[in-house]
Amino acid sequence: MNDTDTICAIATAQGGAIGVVRVSGPQAIAVTERIFRPAQTDKLLSRQPGNTLTFGRIYDGDELIDEVLVSLFRAPHSYTGEESVEISCHGSAYILQQLIQLLIKNGCRLARPGEYTQRAFLGGKMDLSQAEAVADLIASTSAATHRLAMNQMRGGFSEELTALRDKLLTFTSLIELELDFSDHEDVEFADRSSLHALADGIEAVIARLVRSFSVGNVIKNGVPVAIIGETNAGKSTLLNVLLNEERAIVSDIHGTTRDVIEDTVNLGGVIFRFIDTAGIRDTTDTIETLGIERTFQKVAQAEIILWVIDSNHVSQQFDDLSPRILPLAEGKQLILVLNKADEAPATTAAITSPLLSGFTAIAISAKRREHIDDLQELLISAAHLPAITQSDVIVTNVRHYEALSKALDAIRRVQQGLTDHISGDFLSQDIRECIFFLSDIVGEVTNDMVLQNVFKNFCIGK
Amino acid sequence: MNDTDTICAIATAQGGAIGVVRVSGPQAIAVTERIFRPAQTDKLLSRQPGNTLTFGRIYDGDELIDEVLVSLFRAPHSYTGEESVEISCHGSAYILQQLIQLLIKNGCRLARPGEYTQRAFLGGKMDLSQAEAVADLIASTSAATHRLAMNQMRGGFSEELTALRDKLLTFTSLIELELDFSDHEDVEFADRSSLHALADGIEAVIARLVRSFSVGNVIKNGVPVAIIGETNAGKSTLLNVLLNEERAIVSDIHGTTRDVIEDTVNLGGVIFRFIDTAGIRDTTDTIETLGIERTFQKVAQAEIILWVIDSNHVSQQFDDLSPRILPLAEGKQLILVLNKADEAPATTAAITSPLLSGFTAIAISAKRREHIDDLQELLISAAHLPAITQSDVIVTNVRHYEALSKALDAIRRVQQGLTDHISGDFLSQDIRECIFFLSDIVGEVTNDMVLQNVFKNFCIGK
Repeated sequence: MNDTDTICAIATAQGGAIGVVRVSGPQAIAVTERIFRPAQTDKLLSRQPGNTLTFGRIYDGDELIDEVLVSLFRAPHSYTGEESVEISCHGSAYILQQLIQLLIKNGCRLARPGEYTQRAFLGGKMDLSQAEAVADLIASTSAATHRLAMNQMRGGFSEELTALRDKLLTFTSLIELELDFSDHEDVEFADRSSLHALADGIEAVIARLVRSFSVGNVIKNGVPVAIIGETNAGKSTLLNVLLNEERAIVSDIHGTTRDVIEDTVNLGGVIFRFIDTAGIRDTTDTIETLGIERTFQKVAQAEIILWVIDSNHVSQQFDDLSPRILPLAEGKQLILVLNKADEAPATTAAITSPLLSGFTAIAISAKRREHIDDLQELLISAAHLPAITQSDVIVTNVRHYEALSKALDAIRRVQQGLTDHISGDFLSQDIRECIFFLSDIVGEVTNDMVLQNVFKNFCIGK
Repeated sequence: MNDTDTICAIATAQGGAIGVVRVSGPQAIAVTERIFRPAQTDKLLSRQPGNTLTFGRIYDGDELIDEVLVSLFRAPHSYTGEESVEISCHGSAYILQQLIQLLIKNGCRLARPGEYTQRAFLGGKMDLSQAEAVADLIASTSAATHRLAMNQMRGGFSEELTALRDKLLTFTSLIELELDFSDHEDVEFADRSSLHALADGIEAVIARLVRSFSVGNVIKNGVPVAIIGETNAGKSTLLNVLLNEERAIVSDIHGTTRDVIEDTVNLGGVIFRFIDTAGIRDTTDTIETLGIERTFQKVAQAEIILWVIDSNHVSQQFDDLSPRILPLAEGKQLILVLNKADEAPATTAAITSPLLSGFTAIAISAKRREHIDDLQELLISAAHLPAITQSDVIVTNVRHYEALSKALDAIRRVQQGLTDHISGDFLSQDIRECIFFLSDIVGEVTNDMVLQNVFKNFCIGK
């Protein structure tokens, strides 16, 4: 990466009224000036102060490309911290393409995905966890995902980690000072009981963050809900109704759904990730058998299980599958969905029958969309997600989770070492490791490979 | 329409790195200020000058919605001519939705499609033909459509019409002055021979504009190319290859294509509109017969006809259809496409046979994509569109074409009237009518219904 390059990219999706092209780098203003003629001829771009808008026209030689508004940002007061320009033009794919080609012809290079945010990170405008939050923010689809990303972007997360790390740094320098003196006398600059208290405090914080990942992951990726049951009980029809679209192929042929289908939907502010599964039955079809195996694997990952039962065969289907499903449902929320209730008038009675006593059960008709609202309410209450506020620090990123888990291991070794009165050099090593992983999250010790991984999933123009 | 309303809309398509929300109207700055906290607390929006950018945060009460850049425009120096704000936020659908709801909660109304441009028109920032060009510009997909829209937006069109109209106005006032004096004496303030010369000049200009519509329409909507031939000659396969996608259903069953399918593709800068048609054969299937009838109607509208012939049956298919196709091809470009050349080694010989002498013919294999490039080149040269420069005035809009056609009728009545020495009051009536239709184009005499029609096809946010 050459940070003397000036980069450009289309920052808006195709098809709007307005299109925006971003230019950033030392030549951003000079390159734009070459193709831009201000409407008021005395308003030369290069003479404008930062944070101003200039109206004018983009030309390719004598050919008028568009009438545009140019936003000018002077370093370091821009997103990237570099000299920057944003060109707001008419939202035509043709014009945007022409504009990018023109910028490249005049000395820009097309930006890589996430390169603007990467430059903002490298320029010290944000730390790595804040940069990662930008991508999460753009992808946010619910109040909860938005709130978590926003909180992370504001640095709530990084501040807490940096505070912990700084405390550890003080201690480790004291311990390392002891080591320098160790030939001479038995000094202890670092008060062991204070260090123990600090290690306990840090362990508690990191452990809380690590635990928060299960909630964070669910908020970000959706509460996993497995829909299982015998073939032709109406699982795919139910999935379609819940997703409000024709997602799975629905047919009357037994065993239509062979692949596991996943999709998310926002119900009452909670994202659910529905997992449709192959119907369970004895089969000699190899592909279908594989599908059934996968069904049971998927059920293990779910938090909520919707067991769809054909109302015409309640006791038979319950008896058939309960030996396999009930052990799997241990520790999860199990909801019995008696489907096709419109075909079986005795369904309501079945719910209160001794057979199903102790289970949460509901009678619906997926086909006729009857009692779907009730089922959705059951799902929302079964999800029992904690209410998230903007001050909650919750880990949603797998990279952070992994680093925190390693930091947790290290700090626990520190705690154990203190209990066992091990020597300062071993203590120091574990503290350094904990510091390393905490720094990793905010990007202070991060290498190029990690950076590439972080930014490759960004969109171009961000 | 109440122009004291303050309107808001999302101006960018979903899915980009950046999203832009536009606010325009007397309360634009006040409403934005209610939900925006500048990063530098002393930079109150309402105290900022026009054409500046302010960085800060949008809040819904205490809930942080996003970090944004606010572009401020003071009336009349904005797109609409009103007080305006553009809020540039992270391109998340959730954030954009929240932002719009927040603006509405604070006193804005959601803009109707094209309402920004409509306000720009009503505020005198552009005339109606320029406003219409904005929509064309956004929709432009080729250099030629872009150039025509840009030219119209810059007002090249309107200037010419306004100049003509002003000259007519001078004459009509002189003639009407004569009428006031007609009781007294036989005066002629308006010199008839000058008027005749002017009418001739205007007739020439309007006639040229009316004629330019056939070119403008072709540039905007594509050169119409009909693909015809017997059933199973490979017309749909050829269409798919030309469109580079699986557009038409292709099967081996004779008569698969019953509907006329249209789609456009940009070949070498020229847009072609391909019209696939039902294959021609004797059939008793009513629907198919209707399709064949429509085929012949469509051929009448085409400029280029691709007659697809199965290379295995060249002379038979040529003899079968030439009595029907050749009269239709009169005055059009006819290209004989000998398809399935890979199956018939004698195809190349067939092209030079006496049977096809005098015709433009080419041997291809649509299925194997052989010689498709050659066919595309033939198409491009057959299109022979005039090269368009940015100063050319070409009519592309049906509304303008209709108004100009009526103005042309009126001015021709004026010419005839002058030749026939009819009285001033009749002359005046025809001149007034001509003026009316010329004014109609730039929107000076346009009523609400016309305005609604013009703007209803705009996107929201423009």
